[in-house]
Amino acid sequence: MTTKRFALTPGEPAGIGPDLCLLLARDSHPHALVAIASAELLRARAAELGLDITLIDVAPGSWPNQPATANSLYVWDTPLAAPAISGQLNPANADYVLATLTRAGNGCLDGSFAGMITAPVHKGVINEAGISFSGHTEFLAELTGTEQVVMMLATRGLRVALVTTHLPIKEVPAAITAERLQRVTRILHNDLVAKFGIAHPRILVCGLNPHAGEGGHLGREEIEVIEPTLEILRRDGLDLIGPLPADTVFTPKHLEHCDAVLAMYHDQGLPVLKYKGFGAAVNVTLGLPIVRTSVDHGTALDLAGTGRIDTGSLQVALETAYEMSGS
Amino acid sequence: MTTKRFALTPGEPAGIGPDLCLLLARDSHPHALVAIASAELLRARAAELGLDITLIDVAPGSWPNQPATANSLYVWDTPLAAPAISGQLNPANADYVLATLTRAGNGCLDGSFAGMITAPVHKGVINEAGISFSGHTEFLAELTGTEQVVMMLATRGLRVALVTTHLPIKEVPAAITAERLQRVTRILHNDLVAKFGIAHPRILVCGLNPHAGEGGHLGREEIEVIEPTLEILRRDGLDLIGPLPADTVFTPKHLEHCDAVLAMYHDQGLPVLKYKGFGAAVNVTLGLPIVRTSVDHGTALDLAGTGRIDTGSLQVALETAYEMSGS
Repeated sequence: MTTKRFALTPGEPAGIGPDLCLLLARDSHPHALVAIASAELLRARAAELGLDITLIDVAPGSWPNQPATANSLYVWDTPLAAPAISGQLNPANADYVLATLTRAGNGCLDGSFAGMITAPVHKGVINEAGISFSGHTEFLAELTGTEQVVMMLATRGLRVALVTTHLPIKEVPAAITAERLQRVTRILHNDLVAKFGIAHPRILVCGLNPHAGEGGHLGREEIEVIEPTLEILRRDGLDLIGPLPADTVFTPKHLEHCDAVLAMYHDQGLPVLKYKGFGAAVNVTLGLPIVRTSVDHGTALDLAGTGRIDTGSLQVALETAYEMSGS
Repeated sequence: MTTKRFALTPGEPAGIGPDLCLLLARDSHPHALVAIASAELLRARAAELGLDITLIDVAPGSWPNQPATANSLYVWDTPLAAPAISGQLNPANADYVLATLTRAGNGCLDGSFAGMITAPVHKGVINEAGISFSGHTEFLAELTGTEQVVMMLATRGLRVALVTTHLPIKEVPAAITAERLQRVTRILHNDLVAKFGIAHPRILVCGLNPHAGEGGHLGREEIEVIEPTLEILRRDGLDLIGPLPADTVFTPKHLEHCDAVLAMYHDQGLPVLKYKGFGAAVNVTLGLPIVRTSVDHGTALDLAGTGRIDTGSLQVALETAYEMSGS
């Protein structure tokens, strides 16, 4: 295995992101992890947590080619606008958060990094600062000039991608168009091949309605939109099973022989994923020209600086980024 | 524990219902189980399965007061209209299926049975026979003069009730009215007290939209309908937590301290239940004046007569009926 370099963005400075990166740095890792963050913030948070982590200054032109040893962390110092206090949001640092993401994203595009792993940001405080921001995914899509991305959550043994994401449920049926379903399914298929190294991925596709519409008795979108679209995609060689009822798709009989489940909407696919993968699930953005994975939890402001947090999700986010970059 | 009497309806005669009842009869049980079915069918199916089960004829006026011994089964003989062939649906027997349900339901109402446990019926073939039939639940609601019933699925360690059931997803938001939500939640609360013996049930309530609407950003039904309704119910003493995001409600932190989850629609609540309880989930109808539980699978026509089936769900359906009748 060749050593690679990955960017780690601790995200919101008042949240648990910096803590997670420091806790992670206690161990050695197979690749060089570069935290893109304020070194001052990391030093202060390490003191708060009672951790003795050596911060090693790196920057473009001086990239490390070996993993850091245990109890040390590479840092590309990115200054805060105002001191960060654990648990206290400050809109003054919104630009800082976006600067870390921009550095990481551009670093992936120019080959400095094999991928980026993101800790949580706080959408509210960034918008409060007057910057329109709807999330990591959209920000990175824009930064990389990507028209359509796909949200996928993964845990050990299960991957669930979504056709629609953060939409009120009443807007979901109209959003499941043949065009959208085609684009999303192709991205999922292509990334399972290209990034996850699965030669012939098999995808289980949920119906939109209960019992996948039960032959039209419980909704007609399966007949009118989903089935014809899957047929077109199958003719292009995609291995798609469905549309299947969402309450039977997540059973061993079906899951055993599949590489991902494609759910039509958020609450159809994610409850099982998070039930199965509690504390060890990861959010992956498909369709980007770069590798990006993320923890699946929030900033947990009340826990920042306490050390009472679990690095499980970040650990899986790292493993998944390694996997996706062919490491 | 006093011995009670329960009705067992094998349902569709060409499906696996008769097989399940016969397989179950190999063991002894704590209560008297009365199969309401054609004795001829049970004899033929037992021969097909190579089982030696003694059928004991019973009827109103000659009810048993002790459990049957292992390898025997009480039968209230209910004649078929045409011979049943494993795996071959025959509309001629639709009336037979409904007769078994009517006998069981009326027997529960008149005190002959402490409850009824149903094996799967085939809706399609009953409708083909010219009888409008949308399911056990609706049939029993009508038989018992019940206006509103609630569908709940349960497995060991988790109960999930639904505000809406078999509706196309696009009709769901409008169906979540304050009135319906109140009625369903009260029935759930009352049955957890009266039938499950939980003095102060705690219910986790899902939002309708992803992230439970995220403060109105992802839908307003939580603010306009769900929250005010839960407030009214709380003033009546109901212990309700929510509305909570469906993708976090099914995590140990939340589930540990609750007696049931109330989901707004089918595919929000049932995937986790069936994932967790695969092969051992049970369907319970709440709000009826009688106890009724059911297996959560279908007729599996292709497996009838083969013996390659699992009695897990029927076993849990029995246990749940015992629990609900205070046994």
